[in-house]
Amino acid sequence: MKEFNANDHSHRRLNILTGEWVQVSPHRSKRPWQGQIEKLSVDRRPAYDEKCYLCPTNERIGGEKNLDYKEVYAFTNDFAALQSDIPSGGEENGLLQSKSERGVCKVICFSPRHDLTIPEMETHQVKLVVDLWVDQCHEIGALDYINHIQIFENKGAVMGCSNPHPHGQIWAQESVPVEPAKKQTQQLAYHKETGGDLLLDYLAQEQEKPERVIFENDHMIVLVPFWAVWPYEAMIIPKRKMARITEMNEEERFALAEAYRFLTIKYDNLFETSFPYSAGIHQAPYDGNPHEEWQWHMTFYPPLLRSATVKKFMVGYEMLGNPQRDITPEFAANQIKAQSDIHYLMK
Amino acid sequence: MKEFNANDHSHRRLNILTGEWVQVSPHRSKRPWQGQIEKLSVDRRPAYDEKCYLCPTNERIGGEKNLDYKEVYAFTNDFAALQSDIPSGGEENGLLQSKSERGVCKVICFSPRHDLTIPEMETHQVKLVVDLWVDQCHEIGALDYINHIQIFENKGAVMGCSNPHPHGQIWAQESVPVEPAKKQTQQLAYHKETGGDLLLDYLAQEQEKPERVIFENDHMIVLVPFWAVWPYEAMIIPKRKMARITEMNEEERFALAEAYRFLTIKYDNLFETSFPYSAGIHQAPYDGNPHEEWQWHMTFYPPLLRSATVKKFMVGYEMLGNPQRDITPEFAANQIKAQSDIHYLMK
Ligand SMILES: O=P(O)(O)O[C@H]1O[C@H](CO)[C@@H](O)[C@H](O)[C@H]1O
Ligand SMILES: O=P(O)(O)O[C@H]1O[C@H](CO)[C@@H](O)[C@H](O)[C@H]1O
Repeated sequence: MKEFNANDHSHRRLNILTGEWVQVSPHRSKRPWQGQIEKLSVDRRPAYDEKCYLCPTNERIGGEKNLDYKEVYAFTNDFAALQSDIPSGGEENGLLQSKSERGVCKVICFSPRHDLTIPEMETHQVKLVVDLWVDQCHEIGALDYINHIQIFENKGAVMGCSNPHPHGQIWAQESVPVEPAKKQTQQLAYHKETGGDLLLDYLAQEQEKPERVIFENDHMIVLVPFWAVWPYEAMIIPKRKMARITEMNEEERFALAEAYRFLTIKYDNLFETSFPYSAGIHQAPYDGNPHEEWQWHMTFYPPLLRSATVKKFMVGYEMLGNPQRDITPEFAANQIKAQSDIHYLMK
Repeated sequence: MKEFNANDHSHRRLNILTGEWVQVSPHRSKRPWQGQIEKLSVDRRPAYDEKCYLCPTNERIGGEKNLDYKEVYAFTNDFAALQSDIPSGGEENGLLQSKSERGVCKVICFSPRHDLTIPEMETHQVKLVVDLWVDQCHEIGALDYINHIQIFENKGAVMGCSNPHPHGQIWAQESVPVEPAKKQTQQLAYHKETGGDLLLDYLAQEQEKPERVIFENDHMIVLVPFWAVWPYEAMIIPKRKMARITEMNEEERFALAEAYRFLTIKYDNLFETSFPYSAGIHQAPYDGNPHEEWQWHMTFYPPLLRSATVKKFMVGYEMLGNPQRDITPEFAANQIKAQSDIHYLMK
């Protein structure tokens, strides 16, 4: 028999951050697709939409009016999933276990302009988004019942985004959710065992043979992780040890804005479409402890697989068994790198 | 402050099978939906479609011809994600860890009729599907490199199903995938600690106050688990201790067919549509050990939330933080129970 070849043979890869395995089936990208085709959103939007509940001065569903904001804007979600003012309680009844959960949900408008997205904004404008995230983490992190802050962005209707106005969200809460809790466990175990930092040691390894690295500036690296699940999944990782985004200085914030914009321009160019994804930041809990084991990072989960209209479905086997991908992370990194740095709509 | 009320207040619930928590935001179902609307598939399909690669006698993409099958039919997937004939190998390079993974992927046709679905079939026909699953588990489980068998069904285009011909799949492999591995850990821990069976003890508790139980016959119970993630998630659990589906006798197989059909009829009636879902069976590893801790069960993950065209998006917070649901499992169970037992198209 020939030798094992990761570009042809089914295999598993270890996600060192969660301790879980990913199934890779590189040969499967050859299969023809006869399933669901997504709608192409060729929406040339106006700069201001009077019906949009995120545009400046407009009235929201709850009756409140948005400020006439000129840059970025944060407000409390009118349909917050996590409530701050609930009594504590729950069930402790044998195998039925529940517990009240307090929290805060905010909406973060990235720009007053209804028609823009991150890759279409200037880097100094994207930096204002980063600044707002940091400010919000300071403010929300100071609440005594909050222990975890999840910053995220759902982009595109296919990712459940119900409004195309450029925005993200913050859901902060008492408990550390399942995903960051896994990363905490893994980083802590590694730190205890080796004294090193899991993600920084990983970065060092990636830089030795940078086949998955897409971009770097003085402070940030953008790469497709070795264990990527989504076809064009990517991460932004700071080069310096930092448990939380609140530790970034001015230059680092700018570097993050640059990396965020750079990656999303490449994404848009890949299939010449406004590339949908869910993205978010994982960082140390806001629980008063230093959490030396943690390195914050930003993660992008984009669903598109073959074109602007054919996505990867994480269903059946993936829900019941194991995340599974059809192209290799190395192939994905190459495809992203090969794109122009100039947004296709600006050429 | 008032008392905590699980119907109004955000809370978390423990999934005893995975050890992970689910976020419940019951009050959030009130928010209006302005996001993506799914296409309604009002397809009256023909009983035979000459272009379908699952219909009897048709040629498949690989060039092979399907048998002129009259009941159920299994064949090896032409684009198998897991390959059986690959060399072993992988990377063990510091933080980059990969391993070849051998396996078998099969397609299971539920009926020669292109126009049927499980809820539109007779119970004795559904039993033939169950029989085929069992036969396949005997056959595949006997292969010495196989340790886990994942039976599943993706139903509906929205669930990535690329062909409406009624069918499911089997992906069997060397390793135990992430999801069943979690269930193994939890069931084993409980068994060691209490000597009891996690799921059977849970069933006993559910039967005391059956607010989440939808259906039962002599051998099976159908319920919405206390920790359900998907809006109308449900489980079929056998009443007798059984680690694997191969242990079912004739009567139990019929009872499973009845439960499967009953639940999917209720599902279709809920929004008067062919209700999409991913479903599958979790059972003990096929590794030669008895696995006394295991109780097999069948799980249904349906995405629809509010209507035939509005689904729940598991994105942003759910991908990065924690699974989150908008209606309570008790509400969902009530809605399902309230439906007629007769399929809406047969009235
Ligand atoms: O094998 P199919 O039906 O073509 O493909 C479907 O099910 C598979 C197993 O859940 C998934 O990996 C695919 O993303 C999905 O489209
Ligand atoms: O809050 P939104 O944008 O209306 O809703 C979107 O993001 C939420 C957080 O990821 C999800 O729970 C919803 O399913 C999704 O549609």
